[in-house]
Amino acid sequence: MMDKILTVLGVIGVPISVAGSIFHWSALIMFIVYCLTIIALAAIIGRATESLAIVMGPRIGGLLNATFGNAVELIISIFALKAGLISIVLASLTGSVLGNLLLVAGLSFFVGGLKYKRQSFNVQEAQHNAGLLIFAVIVAFVIPEVFTHTMNDQETMIISVGISIILILLYLAALLFKFVTHRGVYQNNDKTNGSHQEEENPEWGKIKAMVILAIATIAVAYVSEHLVDTFDVVGEAFGWSELFIGVIIVAIVGNAAEHASAVIMAYKNKMEVAMEIAVGSTLQVAMFVLPILVLLSLIFSTSMSLVFTWPELISMVAAVLLMTILSNDGDSNWFDGAVLLSAYLIMGIGFYFV
Amino acid sequence: MMDKILTVLGVIGVPISVAGSIFHWSALIMFIVYCLTIIALAAIIGRATESLAIVMGPRIGGLLNATFGNAVELIISIFALKAGLISIVLASLTGSVLGNLLLVAGLSFFVGGLKYKRQSFNVQEAQHNAGLLIFAVIVAFVIPEVFTHTMNDQETMIISVGISIILILLYLAALLFKFVTHRGVYQNNDKTNGSHQEEENPEWGKIKAMVILAIATIAVAYVSEHLVDTFDVVGEAFGWSELFIGVIIVAIVGNAAEHASAVIMAYKNKMEVAMEIAVGSTLQVAMFVLPILVLLSLIFSTSMSLVFTWPELISMVAAVLLMTILSNDGDSNWFDGAVLLSAYLIMGIGFYFV
Amino acid sequence: MMDKILTVLGVIGVPISVAGSIFHWSALIMFIVYCLTIIALAAIIGRATESLAIVMGPRIGGLLNATFGNAVELIISIFALKAGLISIVLASLTGSVLGNLLLVAGLSFFVGGLKYKRQSFNVQEAQHNAGLLIFAVIVAFVIPEVFTHTMNDQETMIISVGISIILILLYLAALLFKFVTHRGVYQNNDKTNGSHQEEENPEWGKIKAMVILAIATIAVAYVSEHLVDTFDVVGEAFGWSELFIGVIIVAIVGNAAEHASAVIMAYKNKMEVAMEIAVGSTLQVAMFVLPILVLLSLIFSTSMSLVFTWPELISMVAAVLLMTILSNDGDSNWFDGAVLLSAYLIMGIGFYFV
Repeated sequence: MMDKILTVLGVIGVPISVAGSIFHWSALIMFIVYCLTIIALAAIIGRATESLAIVMGPRIGGLLNATFGNAVELIISIFALKAGLISIVLASLTGSVLGNLLLVAGLSFFVGGLKYKRQSFNVQEAQHNAGLLIFAVIVAFVIPEVFTHTMNDQETMIISVGISIILILLYLAALLFKFVTHRGVYQNNDKTNGSHQEEENPEWGKIKAMVILAIATIAVAYVSEHLVDTFDVVGEAFGWSELFIGVIIVAIVGNAAEHASAVIMAYKNKMEVAMEIAVGSTLQVAMFVLPILVLLSLIFSTSMSLVFTWPELISMVAAVLLMTILSNDGDSNWFDGAVLLSAYLIMGIGFYFV
Repeated sequence: MMDKILTVLGVIGVPISVAGSIFHWSALIMFIVYCLTIIALAAIIGRATESLAIVMGPRIGGLLNATFGNAVELIISIFALKAGLISIVLASLTGSVLGNLLLVAGLSFFVGGLKYKRQSFNVQEAQHNAGLLIFAVIVAFVIPEVFTHTMNDQETMIISVGISIILILLYLAALLFKFVTHRGVYQNNDKTNGSHQEEENPEWGKIKAMVILAIATIAVAYVSEHLVDTFDVVGEAFGWSELFIGVIIVAIVGNAAEHASAVIMAYKNKMEVAMEIAVGSTLQVAMFVLPILVLLSLIFSTSMSLVFTWPELISMVAAVLLMTILSNDGDSNWFDGAVLLSAYLIMGIGFYFV
Repeated sequence: MMDKILTVLGVIGVPISVAGSIFHWSALIMFIVYCLTIIALAAIIGRATESLAIVMGPRIGGLLNATFGNAVELIISIFALKAGLISIVLASLTGSVLGNLLLVAGLSFFVGGLKYKRQSFNVQEAQHNAGLLIFAVIVAFVIPEVFTHTMNDQETMIISVGISIILILLYLAALLFKFVTHRGVYQNNDKTNGSHQEEENPEWGKIKAMVILAIATIAVAYVSEHLVDTFDVVGEAFGWSELFIGVIIVAIVGNAAEHASAVIMAYKNKMEVAMEIAVGSTLQVAMFVLPILVLLSLIFSTSMSLVFTWPELISMVAAVLLMTILSNDGDSNWFDGAVLLSAYLIMGIGFYFV
């Protein structure tokens, strides 16, 4: 029933969005139209991912979802980069890291925890990911900020490019490790935790799900891009700063797909998929999307270095340390979710006033 | 025998303290009288807590002890706040966090470890608490410092109040989690570690223990308050700075009750009670006492924001990370205690010269 | 075969080095001669350590290796200290910490991981060491930097000396804990992981191995010292800054012995020895070599305080957090090695430009 309403909303929302952007309807009204459309499309993406996860296993399903989700962000960021809006790009990628680690994972833990007393996920996977998070944020992002104080712009860019290449290579090595050399090596032996052993029938077949995923992702990208244009009007109307829009609003809207599917997975007690979406998406943004953007920026007029502001850096470091310790025991509950959501709320308040 | 001497000392110490403060005896002499009285009262509080822990279980016993212990600090801090001594309040709360995490837990690990080769406590409880410590210190305390550099006083207070409310709500949620929704869910299955399974007879009954606890706490509060008045004379005599008095001296005296009972519990191999007192008390100070004081300060002439100094913040972050890794394996020994005590000593030296 | 070539190279290299330094041959040529000789000697040291590890067990073998390895650094540092080159001493000790934690352990994990899918080491040992790493770097090194901003030189030295004494005492306590009070307490019960249970015959007897170890170490010290003299010429020729030479070049050469033996051990699946060399050597540098140098500096004209630069501190903190999380699961693979090596590479790039 709910699914049908959202499908109809998605199917209607896209042409209305197109019409609104062509005929320049009121930005405040279009803001609401765009948001509803994205939520509806995100739900469709969530269902497609779920079907794929059943067919192809939780890890590849999660990776697909993260990739389709981040494709949206990559596209938006390229447009912003072309327009020279470097600090908004860095802010929205920070927001994506915080949103995935704190909001998406927090909501998944919380909503899943309301239904199940204790939900398990793969501890070794979680510790593997925690190592990569610490590498990406505390090494690759913190080092440039600390080291480039006394450097000129050219040296800063050389370091940024060098670190970006290392990040991309290590991300590819992580995929090689996960899907080739150590495929299944770090799986849980006790296959009884989690309910994804029950034979489930996917709603859509493999091909149909992938086609729907692709179309819905393109539609989300289109709508998101126009949504971005309404931000200055909406920001002025509500008194939001550019940093707040970048870190909080763009990140929430840009990650709507991950939000929806991760929470749905958690509610169905498929915590491994939920974690893969939340943490896997964070890693993809930090180790692939961001360095690709740094390299791409070299062909634009303004190049983007890998130097975040202190509030951005400290927020990401705190989020990574919090997620590392909370996921270290391999299970989650509603309170773990409440802790992550509280951290997101505190940072949101901070970015509102900064 | 020792118990009797301390009881007599406590019973005699209180009227002498009252007399001394009324008749304005020499501050240096009264400093010693107050200290001895507090140590004696702390021992009585320790015995009452122990009786309660036997009757009501280790976790409620520990919570009661932490609460009675922190009531003293809350009362002293309210008086200091009323007098506008904001930096001393923040310093003494920092000292309370450091004192509980490093000195109380360190002494417990060390003294317990001299008797037992290896003492166990609940790993999941420890990891749950580590998550809250990281949340409180690295998110809720670090974020305001980093974000408020460019803010005016009013914005800083809005953020401080917002974070304080979130801290209090999350602390209440943590109690709900621990005592209602997940009561006993994360208990160790192997009940053989620790000696608290032997049927023990409490020294005092439930009612008697609670009455003694209440009276001794009030007496400690009374004596502590007058002790504080002697600090400027003593500080001048010994060359101690205000920050050092706040972080080290006030914190040691103000936490004497926790110190005594935690170490006694560790010596009896009841590490879960000792950990609950040390870490539980830290969490209560950070997530309840401190935010309550921030909110209360709004009705006083000078309001207190949640912005610590860098030395205070870095010390708390280091203490939290150290405790997180040391308690991660679920057991302790004399060397773990020596590491915590060494960290306290290093910070003590730092605060002495800062 | 390879062993024989390296032995011959070592035996020939030392007299050539002596001749070169006496007759002042070209610095660039001697740089290469010294490097090859050190590599050859390091291989001999590795074989001697391996023999000792078989005879005396993995932990004492690792300790011996770390000690002989660090003796070289201690000797070089004393010469540098005498010459008043304080910032180079601190830089080379930073480099030693980074080199051991990231490069030595990274290469061990990587090379061992190419042969074995999954290598195990003692989790409790790793967590014990992680606690000490956090203590040394995040407490003992970070606190002085943060606290001494407002202090004069004399107060800074008092704090440095106080912390140095605490570090040395705690290091001795750690040895007492490991070899006396808790000898064997934290051993893995499952003795099946790792191959060092197969009865192996050492290449050399105990006495012969120790004599070779001692002679080779002295030779390395001699050659290293003359290598240092070539750095200014080589640095100018290649455009390397003093900080880069201290952190990267001196550290790599000074730790060549550890590098060689740790990697050999990892390749033979003796991960506990490899970890003991890498992490044990780090701890020895941070908790023994460095504080000894601070105390020794008091008798020289320029005393050395325990205050690192921010890039040095942040790099060490990041390296410690990364190693803590990666070793937390008690096993390693090629990808863990790739992460550590990537972190080293990023810091190397940073120090090159700083």
